[in-house]
Amino acid sequence: MTFRAIADEAGVSIATVSRVINGQVPVSPATRQMVRQAARRLGGGLTEARPLARPVFIYCPYALTDYFGTIVTSVVETLALHGSRALVHAGESAVGDTTSLLALPEEPGIAGAVLVLPPSSTRDLAALHARRYPLVVVDPRVELPEDVASVSAAHAAGARRVTQHLLGLGHRRIGFIGGPRSWLASRNRLVGHTAALAETGLLPDPALTAEITEPTTEQGHTAALRLLAGEPRPTALVAFNDKTAAGAVRAAREKGLTVPGDLSVTGFDDSELGQSITPALTTVRQPLEEMGRIAVSLLLRLIAGHAVDTLHVELATPLVVRESTAPPRSAQ
Amino acid sequence: MTFRAIADEAGVSIATVSRVINGQVPVSPATRQMVRQAARRLGGGLTEARPLARPVFIYCPYALTDYFGTIVTSVVETLALHGSRALVHAGESAVGDTTSLLALPEEPGIAGAVLVLPPSSTRDLAALHARRYPLVVVDPRVELPEDVASVSAAHAAGARRVTQHLLGLGHRRIGFIGGPRSWLASRNRLVGHTAALAETGLLPDPALTAEITEPTTEQGHTAALRLLAGEPRPTALVAFNDKTAAGAVRAAREKGLTVPGDLSVTGFDDSELGQSITPALTTVRQPLEEMGRIAVSLLLRLIAGHAVDTLHVELATPLVVRESTAPPRSAQ
Repeated sequence: MTFRAIADEAGVSIATVSRVINGQVPVSPATRQMVRQAARRLGGGLTEARPLARPVFIYCPYALTDYFGTIVTSVVETLALHGSRALVHAGESAVGDTTSLLALPEEPGIAGAVLVLPPSSTRDLAALHARRYPLVVVDPRVELPEDVASVSAAHAAGARRVTQHLLGLGHRRIGFIGGPRSWLASRNRLVGHTAALAETGLLPDPALTAEITEPTTEQGHTAALRLLAGEPRPTALVAFNDKTAAGAVRAAREKGLTVPGDLSVTGFDDSELGQSITPALTTVRQPLEEMGRIAVSLLLRLIAGHAVDTLHVELATPLVVRESTAPPRSAQ
Repeated sequence: MTFRAIADEAGVSIATVSRVINGQVPVSPATRQMVRQAARRLGGGLTEARPLARPVFIYCPYALTDYFGTIVTSVVETLALHGSRALVHAGESAVGDTTSLLALPEEPGIAGAVLVLPPSSTRDLAALHARRYPLVVVDPRVELPEDVASVSAAHAAGARRVTQHLLGLGHRRIGFIGGPRSWLASRNRLVGHTAALAETGLLPDPALTAEITEPTTEQGHTAALRLLAGEPRPTALVAFNDKTAAGAVRAAREKGLTVPGDLSVTGFDDSELGQSITPALTTVRQPLEEMGRIAVSLLLRLIAGHAVDTLHVELATPLVVRESTAPPRSAQ
């Protein structure tokens, strides 16, 4: 039984049969099934390489909870749909382990890699890319070379939208809790915030700006307490993400302020946490699952050697208005 | 250069040298380093099999967020510490995929498996085990055969502790939001709750009992609304986990009740959500990271063919008292 005979019987190309038999990735489960059935009709025992032969390496040096966990789950699920498997390197202990990354091209058993918010230098990523290693970066932390594939959320557009929402409600003293300075996401969100202010004729006020080094509830709490001590105090706080916003809501309550009566607070992410706290947060949705799916789809095309025209994909970040924002007292 | 020469030079056994060279798992990084240095001193180029040669399969058919994500991150990190890698099958799409599990013994490239709250039948797990497949179940959903290794939290003891805490504050009408009926965890927590009540001379009241089918904020909200509609209404609610408790807190607020003034609410898990909402939840800590670490340690011993005496490990579940519990109004 030849590849050609199976291909004719299944009505697919010889290349597709070869991909099924060699356990390569870009074959849909339906096609795989068709090829198997054709081989069976021809009386052949089709010995397929197991998908394991070429798993994809996923590097996500953080705890797989809400934000990162949702992205990685989506990547793993999408790979499974394509009959491929995920070799996951995650957790904070993976932060310093750039060796595993740089050694990837020497591991022929691995098909390619998805790196989630990698702390690696641009130089390391460029080096990997220079070796033509199939690679997609999700939520890049730094500016990437033009030709390294990436998927991220539209940070600037989302941040601009949330500040516009607060300005539209009548807020003028808007505190801003920015994310870690070295993150591209933080810088882009500041750009969006500043643009929205400037469009209303306002310039950012250093007295209304705080910065955190890690996006946690605790740091959000501390930063909010500092901003709320200012005179006159802000009537709204834009927090880096939902966790920082949850900390800000707690800080407001401790100062005897109601949210959103005395203070509006906004988040970013649209996480389960932000939906579960009271008041539920007005926030910006990050399409985390879609980011994972698109990352896999880009990677499979790179592995298959197909042309990829748009290497930098940016996904829309809609505003989600819930209960934590309202007009300022003075404007009511 | 023989294995024996390297073993003598490094001061380890020949078996250890063989494990390092064959990329097998149970070798500490320090030992690995010693063997490498010894080989180098003897002038040899030690060609080690890559750890990839034998990754561990992790099956966790849920989104890797808070609860499951924390367990899987710990498993992945612990494997990495041992120089091993994790092939992760996760996400809800993996629920029905028992084929991957049953086919594991045919994949010599995989060293063993960690299954997290697997929905598989006892029969499937017993079948795998009967083939002497190295296997550890974390948080089993059903009773396991005596000789299948498992790690779980002490559900009954934790639930008993939290109900004792409420009884100690003076509560007598305690509502109970139970988890999915088919889960071992749900049944064991009900046992602990019932025991605590009985120790105070109370019997469980069906009018004070609700059941959810999935531990979400929404279902907690709905179940709490139903229990709070009872007359006389409960003065405390024991929720299945922190998410359900967050839903119960929201339900109380909607009915104009303050927590803990009018109603005490308890969770289970000690998740970030429970710590971030206001009031922060009194809850039971589940040692999720430790569960992951012990699962790996059991699995590595099974893979190495070592004797494992205690196959069912149950980890302590301490009570964490925060802001969501107080004496009932009547007792104040």
